[in-house]
Amino acid sequence: MNKSRLEAFSDGVFAVAITLLVLEIKVPEVAGGKLAHALGEQWPSYASYVVSFAVIGVIWMNHHAVFEHLARVDRRLMAHNLFLLLWIVLIPWATSLMATYMREGGEGERVAAVVYAATMTLMGVSFGALWTYASRDRRLLGADLTDDEIRRRTFRFTIGAPLYVVALVVALFSAPVCLVIIGALAVYYALPGAGMMRLPA
Amino acid sequence: MNKSRLEAFSDGVFAVAITLLVLEIKVPEVAGGKLAHALGEQWPSYASYVVSFAVIGVIWMNHHAVFEHLARVDRRLMAHNLFLLLWIVLIPWATSLMATYMREGGEGERVAAVVYAATMTLMGVSFGALWTYASRDRRLLGADLTDDEIRRRTFRFTIGAPLYVVALVVALFSAPVCLVIIGALAVYYALPGAGMMRLPA
Amino acid sequence: MNKSRLEAFSDGVFAVAITLLVLEIKVPEVAGGKLAHALGEQWPSYASYVVSFAVIGVIWMNHHAVFEHLARVDRRLMAHNLFLLLWIVLIPWATSLMATYMREGGEGERVAAVVYAATMTLMGVSFGALWTYASRDRRLLGADLTDDEIRRRTFRFTIGAPLYVVALVVALFSAPVCLVIIGALAVYYALPGAGMMRLPA
Amino acid sequence: MNKSRLEAFSDGVFAVAITLLVLEIKVPEVAGGKLAHALGEQWPSYASYVVSFAVIGVIWMNHHAVFEHLARVDRRLMAHNLFLLLWIVLIPWATSLMATYMREGGEGERVAAVVYAATMTLMGVSFGALWTYASRDRRLLGADLTDDEIRRRTFRFTIGAPLYVVALVVALFSAPVCLVIIGALAVYYALPGAGMMRLPA
Repeated sequence: MNKSRLEAFSDGVFAVAITLLVLEIKVPEVAGGKLAHALGEQWPSYASYVVSFAVIGVIWMNHHAVFEHLARVDRRLMAHNLFLLLWIVLIPWATSLMATYMREGGEGERVAAVVYAATMTLMGVSFGALWTYASRDRRLLGADLTDDEIRRRTFRFTIGAPLYVVALVVALFSAPVCLVIIGALAVYYALPGAGMMRLPA
Repeated sequence: MNKSRLEAFSDGVFAVAITLLVLEIKVPEVAGGKLAHALGEQWPSYASYVVSFAVIGVIWMNHHAVFEHLARVDRRLMAHNLFLLLWIVLIPWATSLMATYMREGGEGERVAAVVYAATMTLMGVSFGALWTYASRDRRLLGADLTDDEIRRRTFRFTIGAPLYVVALVVALFSAPVCLVIIGALAVYYALPGAGMMRLPA
Repeated sequence: MNKSRLEAFSDGVFAVAITLLVLEIKVPEVAGGKLAHALGEQWPSYASYVVSFAVIGVIWMNHHAVFEHLARVDRRLMAHNLFLLLWIVLIPWATSLMATYMREGGEGERVAAVVYAATMTLMGVSFGALWTYASRDRRLLGADLTDDEIRRRTFRFTIGAPLYVVALVVALFSAPVCLVIIGALAVYYALPGAGMMRLPA
Repeated sequence: MNKSRLEAFSDGVFAVAITLLVLEIKVPEVAGGKLAHALGEQWPSYASYVVSFAVIGVIWMNHHAVFEHLARVDRRLMAHNLFLLLWIVLIPWATSLMATYMREGGEGERVAAVVYAATMTLMGVSFGALWTYASRDRRLLGADLTDDEIRRRTFRFTIGAPLYVVALVVALFSAPVCLVIIGALAVYYALPGAGMMRLPA
């Protein structure tokens, strides 16, 4: 099994998914004089775009960080990776759903936010599962990480899922707050060294 | 001829095709209170998405497995590869057709399922032809496989086509069962070592 | 300047453009009982898809063949390459135009076919210009080709443009014949060794 | 951190974004006899397509030129890179907005042109910031550039932003002139050695 082709395929899917996010932002069809107003009304599209872009970008960075440490890949890891990509590819759809119904308020807004946060949760769970599979007993790891470094990464790569669940619960009450939490989580992951704290002993 | 650029181009097409599957899942345009119901009604879209995602993902894995063993590529192999990709690129369309008409039942459902299964069949036939061209008399293979290993892979890479034909026949009676068969075939291929059994002597 | 990144970017554009062709094939919105008929009515979409797929695939193969022989790339070659890609990216649009109006006959059909053939012509001219720039006085070539081999490739890579002009003239009379000519040209290029005949001395 | 995967991901995003520009050009739905006229009416789509294609292509070339000189990448550079890509991915939307409203004139045209130029400005600022981060005190650079060469590149890679601001101001008066300025800037960057002049001492 060839690690670099697995990376190339995954990079391709990440790149296409992050770029397809743009299709969610509509060109308003209004009389010219109302364009500025119509563009302003679309703020949920911009907010959703930025948050989803950050999420995919950060997951790509984490994916990259995991694969740096893999000495080899096997067929089961490829299946884990496909399972992760299954949720990544859904993100443009979930983003579009969020952007459409966050404008409308009420029950539709809550349902859309729950679906959005659930997609992120499943993505986070898949990522944690991929890392856990690869790192347990150093199954696919090289020798470049100490046991302590592995534990820190295990914390980093599995903490996302429960935090997305928090966002999912919040989604039942407020779509914008749910979006802010998911965006904050992405910013946290983007910070150098973030999430690298030691697990409580 | 440069194998790695052929892989890069193919990986690109696989990655774009698998990601375009998301365009098939619609954002319902309903009053907010009916969103949950409308999302539930769309189950054929989710089912088709998952199955097609698995099919493309698994074919990518098999493509990868074949190219690992090629010592070189020639212009005819590139033509075989383009012929395979011709069907891969059609999958998002066939998936969208399936998702649209599986909701409706009746003759439309059967026609859509036949087109879907026929696309998979032609893809499977192309894959088998690519392998057969590359492996016959070890035309493009290196020395890393024994004759027995080649025979096993020939079984693995040519058994897909007749099984897709079974799904095609089933499509005449039931679109969901056809979908289940094609999904099961993908799961079977995804299992490590699956399809690697010896050909009957 | 780094040849491999230029190849990677170009491969990405080729892969996305060839895959976007699928968006041109519509999912008919008809009552279930009329689906088979509606799918049959769409034959110009399938024909255009196959021809455009073959064209992009074959141009990719030729692009690959050219870059195999480049010892280095410069900024002007990158500009030539972008100019080629400008037309490649237009092909999905030209294909969709062809597919839409070939169904309708009359003046619309002729206009669509002219635009389609003109896109191919401009692409062919750009390809010839790229090769001519790279090969004149062996500007960017390595030492692996003899003068005679360079001349044969010059024939191969510049003959496309005038043949596309023939297709453009034919487009004024018949869109299907124009499509057949362009498809035949792609098949000719796909054959191993095609177009490699010696230039008349 | 692995430079080549960062390049591969970025190349993927550039390639997808530049190819998605084609979705902005519509297939007119008119009676066949009016197709030529309808295609002519769409000139703002073609003009916007060409300019945006040139901008993305040239930014890709500059991105390439920057990364050639990086000895290593760090997590903060990856964040800078994602911030740049955030605006690159928006370009197909901004282009579509421009093409739609440049046809209509009046206030809509000015608003669309301002949004288009603002997207380019933010992209230019991000590019300058990426280069500044990487090159300050040779933070991520190798030893292949002299101090003078670094200064010239700093000029080259930061001059874009203020020129895009000029285009933005012009957008308040004329969308076509704004488009011409942005296109001219791309041509200037595409010229070999362009922008490589010494900074005033």
